[in-house]
Amino acid sequence: MAEKRKILRPKPVSGFPEYLPEVRMVEQRWLDTIRATFESYGFVNIETPSVEALEVLEAKGATDKEIYTLTRLHAEEAEEADARLGLHFDLTVPFARYAAQHFNDLDFPFKRYQMQRVWRGERPQAGRFREFTQCDVDVINVDALPLHFDAELPAVVLDALARLQVGAVTLQISNRKVLTGFLAGLGITDTGPVVRAIDKLDKIGPEAVVAELVDGVHLPIETAQRCLGLAQIRTTDTGFVDQVRALDVTGEVLDQGLEELAFVLEHLGQADPVRAGTATVVADLSIARGLDYYSGTVYEGRLDAAPGYGAITAGGRYQDLAGTYINKSLPGVGISLGLTRLFSRMVSEGALGPLRKSTADVLILLLKEEQRSEAASLARQMRARGLRVEQYHAPQKMQRQLGYAAKKGIPHVWFLGGTSSTGEEKPHEVKDMATGDQRPADPMTWLPPA
Amino acid sequence: MAEKRKILRPKPVSGFPEYLPEVRMVEQRWLDTIRATFESYGFVNIETPSVEALEVLEAKGATDKEIYTLTRLHAEEAEEADARLGLHFDLTVPFARYAAQHFNDLDFPFKRYQMQRVWRGERPQAGRFREFTQCDVDVINVDALPLHFDAELPAVVLDALARLQVGAVTLQISNRKVLTGFLAGLGITDTGPVVRAIDKLDKIGPEAVVAELVDGVHLPIETAQRCLGLAQIRTTDTGFVDQVRALDVTGEVLDQGLEELAFVLEHLGQADPVRAGTATVVADLSIARGLDYYSGTVYEGRLDAAPGYGAITAGGRYQDLAGTYINKSLPGVGISLGLTRLFSRMVSEGALGPLRKSTADVLILLLKEEQRSEAASLARQMRARGLRVEQYHAPQKMQRQLGYAAKKGIPHVWFLGGTSSTGEEKPHEVKDMATGDQRPADPMTWLPPA
Repeated sequence: MAEKRKILRPKPVSGFPEYLPEVRMVEQRWLDTIRATFESYGFVNIETPSVEALEVLEAKGATDKEIYTLTRLHAEEAEEADARLGLHFDLTVPFARYAAQHFNDLDFPFKRYQMQRVWRGERPQAGRFREFTQCDVDVINVDALPLHFDAELPAVVLDALARLQVGAVTLQISNRKVLTGFLAGLGITDTGPVVRAIDKLDKIGPEAVVAELVDGVHLPIETAQRCLGLAQIRTTDTGFVDQVRALDVTGEVLDQGLEELAFVLEHLGQADPVRAGTATVVADLSIARGLDYYSGTVYEGRLDAAPGYGAITAGGRYQDLAGTYINKSLPGVGISLGLTRLFSRMVSEGALGPLRKSTADVLILLLKEEQRSEAASLARQMRARGLRVEQYHAPQKMQRQLGYAAKKGIPHVWFLGGTSSTGEEKPHEVKDMATGDQRPADPMTWLPPA
Repeated sequence: MAEKRKILRPKPVSGFPEYLPEVRMVEQRWLDTIRATFESYGFVNIETPSVEALEVLEAKGATDKEIYTLTRLHAEEAEEADARLGLHFDLTVPFARYAAQHFNDLDFPFKRYQMQRVWRGERPQAGRFREFTQCDVDVINVDALPLHFDAELPAVVLDALARLQVGAVTLQISNRKVLTGFLAGLGITDTGPVVRAIDKLDKIGPEAVVAELVDGVHLPIETAQRCLGLAQIRTTDTGFVDQVRALDVTGEVLDQGLEELAFVLEHLGQADPVRAGTATVVADLSIARGLDYYSGTVYEGRLDAAPGYGAITAGGRYQDLAGTYINKSLPGVGISLGLTRLFSRMVSEGALGPLRKSTADVLILLLKEEQRSEAASLARQMRARGLRVEQYHAPQKMQRQLGYAAKKGIPHVWFLGGTSSTGEEKPHEVKDMATGDQRPADPMTWLPPA
């Protein structure tokens, strides 16, 4: 009967991650943990459409190469030119548009988090994601935003990472004003090339940085040395202030930057019990976040076990979120957690811990067809008590049903009680699949051990 | 100083819903409830990429007009032809591809749920979504799948709807074999046109159905009347069996359909306490689900308050999920809940109940700058106990801080205790914003009233 069919072999699409259910279950737990952490600080969620008008996505220029645009498969020519929609490539651009569009309906300071997929039209390449999930948390205010939030935002993300148990993390913090104020004090006005050189310190080392500053940017060697001196300052307390002072550069912006950075470092605190032993916070004056739009505090976080894997979290303070759209000044501070980046690493390292193929707490066995209604009613009662209950679907051999529970990792199986054919009363029994222990249990009160 | 900036007014993109945070908070609660319900039956989650290869999306033909394809904004010509990716327009096509691709890693019966956005390239039009969220739950097995699941699947969705408190719902059930078996018994072989006519009964009424069967399909009037007779049968118990028998048509397929439908109706049960009073289950022999690929049981659910709004949930049994991709027979049964469809209606009806603009349980006031560290440490302690705690960000006037809590709907505010300037010990106090009641509280044990 079975004719040979033409088979279309499905292939994974490179750059678009997809997991088995047992891995997805861990990813869901991660998302729950991150969300619960964000909410424990009073942040509220928003979601924006996956698409924005192209003019919104291109408002800041620069990233346009990575945008995926949408076209209806059988669109007519005229319509095609019309359809100016693209998938968002980050969550900041949509947030800016959202804040402006709904400005009158939001309450400030507006503390929002957003956990969504974003898309980048990268060429297929190993380790490059074309679809991935970002978890962003930001606070914005009208006209001015207290420095308090510069300390709160990284604390939120460090708490989340501690709860996820991803291993030790180092968060490097600096303040743009320290670097730009320092360079201004040295009489350097074109700061871009210097910032770029300093930002590479971790990658290329001190000699190469000095060489670039001298040969590329044409700084005097003594000036280049002082820039390097600044970039090499790393302290876990406010000791960085004296170290900068020792470099003998002064200026108002520099002072302000040092003061802000000291405040953030102090209030972020090393001693938080939630993340005790899991996170080191370092004032690291080499951190600049490249040419991003940050205007004050900047953050970058890495796994201690794999600093070369790059930043798993990053962010900072910006002067104005939505100036393109609204005639209000909306300063803010935000930080982003690269969920897919971090999670996919844990998956490939086999670091997720034990995996389960079922969500059920207990499997109710069906040894005789006549027990089906009773099994269903028992399942309903247990679900009403908050338990996750799977009903075995057919009166098959007991060994097969136990095998099903074992295969899917369902931790308990339930044997229905009742009156046997000889008139004997048999109690309900529950079997612990891990220990093999089987004992009478009351369906109205039984709970899986915590 | 403030120069007049060029403003780009952001506009909503038609067909892509977006909500304020207080509405999104309810949507999140809905998603949590639906997920918890699915998991309470032992279903596991999967997510698939937002895109599939076009050949996968087009494997079944028919819906191709609605597909959005992706193009890199600045792609070269050659590359464009290459990029054969489209956004998925439902969750069934990706599930079929997933099941085939990961077949060897899945355990059967495989019970999966999937809650994701899908996209349809519709022309912009009021009430038409171009991006929306579907919640699908399906079970598939190799070769054969017990009828048990035909009763379990709609129970899952009815439970979810009861927990969401969306108002009374009617679920209409039928079985394709009843209709096709009946038509075969009447000697009708080209069943398509007849099924389509009968499917319209609710919309066009009995006279128009008979007219279409006689004039359009050229059935004898007596045969048309018997078809109408079948389609008009509606019973909440297994009474439909006798009513069909009374129409005096026989056949093996018809018998099988009646038996299956009776089993499903009986086991789905009217008496489930979870959904008591919220759902009516009706055997409705006019339900056919058009030309979909269903082979047995079919479902359609509507709001009693708005039957004309159309189906909010629908599904059925299919013969083979993934035959295009794999040389295995994978019969299944599934049902889909149109989350965005249902939720957007509740939003526009103002039926969501009270809304809140913050996730916080309590706001810790900051009346003096010197208390900032103490406030922070208190907030940390409370978060470690599972509370959601916002720290007020600046030592502003008390009235302003209370106003902030009131505006965001934060139900409690916390006044820090401590030693006053006169050396007096003041206890911590918490104020209930709803009642105005303020009383001493211990930060180590205080909980918001449930």
